[in-house]
Amino acid sequence: MPVTITAFAASPDRGRGMARDMPVRWALEEVGRPYEVRLVSFAEMKEPAHLGLQPFGQIPTYEDGTVALFESGAIVLHIAQSHAGLLPEEPGARGRAIAWLFAALSTMEPPVLDRETAGFLEASEPWHAARQPLLESRICARLDALAASLGEAEWLVDGAFSAGDLQMVTVLRRLGSSGLLDGYPTLAAYVARAEARPAFQRAFAAQRAVFEASGGG
Amino acid sequence: MPVTITAFAASPDRGRGMARDMPVRWALEEVGRPYEVRLVSFAEMKEPAHLGLQPFGQIPTYEDGTVALFESGAIVLHIAQSHAGLLPEEPGARGRAIAWLFAALSTMEPPVLDRETAGFLEASEPWHAARQPLLESRICARLDALAASLGEAEWLVDGAFSAGDLQMVTVLRRLGSSGLLDGYPTLAAYVARAEARPAFQRAFAAQRAVFEASGGG
Repeated sequence: MPVTITAFAASPDRGRGMARDMPVRWALEEVGRPYEVRLVSFAEMKEPAHLGLQPFGQIPTYEDGTVALFESGAIVLHIAQSHAGLLPEEPGARGRAIAWLFAALSTMEPPVLDRETAGFLEASEPWHAARQPLLESRICARLDALAASLGEAEWLVDGAFSAGDLQMVTVLRRLGSSGLLDGYPTLAAYVARAEARPAFQRAFAAQRAVFEASGGG
Repeated sequence: MPVTITAFAASPDRGRGMARDMPVRWALEEVGRPYEVRLVSFAEMKEPAHLGLQPFGQIPTYEDGTVALFESGAIVLHIAQSHAGLLPEEPGARGRAIAWLFAALSTMEPPVLDRETAGFLEASEPWHAARQPLLESRICARLDALAASLGEAEWLVDGAFSAGDLQMVTVLRRLGSSGLLDGYPTLAAYVARAEARPAFQRAFAAQRAVFEASGGG
């Protein structure tokens, strides 16, 4: 059975590769696994058929005939653990790459999403501007630690691209136009290096094509 | 080599089992793996020796002679994948239990931590009270979905306790005295059921003993 994932029929990110199907597409491209995409509307995401696959009514999901998964982190890990190419073979390095995948989701992403959520939900509140320094300082504390750990290396673990880098870059890309990466040239270069990978480019083009076919662009 | 984890020498949670060594202790108890604990001060957490293990200067870490890990989610997953007892054998159920572990960290925890962080960092700000309804509604949207998915079942996947339940209950326990679980009797019972497990009790007592030995209590 081919791999089938779900993605937004009408992504709120307007094809910028910020939706959570992007890391899944990227991981599948990195390991060379073909996949099909089932597009779901916002209404379909809240219907029982989709909720049976994704209890929170979100995307993406992943089905390959053996497993049916939700949560992009779980899906990326599953792809990485069941194919060669996204995790080192040596157990110590492999464990560290998986730890970075979790760090991206549990340590780096929460303050990044906090700032983003405030922009969506609280932009018109009187306190929005006053909260920005706090929101940004929490992100920068994480970026400081990440930059120190990456140093001058190309990738986080033993100089080889891994699922940890894939997930970390996915989070860092959310900072997009915030300017917060401008103070971290090695991290900006790290993101650019990841985005230049052919697998990233193919995944980006595929999600972009959905947006363009829907009449956007 | 025995398993060695790190934990706070002086936990800010005052022995309530809210620090992130708790899910790691709990997982080790569930699989019956003995472990040693190295207590670290806040100063030691920011020193190079610890930063080499934990790039963000946090606890816990995990070392077993083969791997050296950080991120409690990664450690719980490693324990679950390398011992029997915390993941179903059947691939579909196993994948789903891992997806729930990620859902606990990536979907449930962020709004729970948002509310907690606001309580720490913004309690004296003029907007703190006005933001509460928003913070709580985001948590309740997740609790609604979780309660619907759990239904009347004892545990999230096929009626058997898994690493997904361990991580989800760890997050739900953070709601503690907020009262937010009062509206969800099946989720409150789910947390109580998990806390009644002998492995939870042993882990809780072990972290509590650190607090009491430090002169707390």
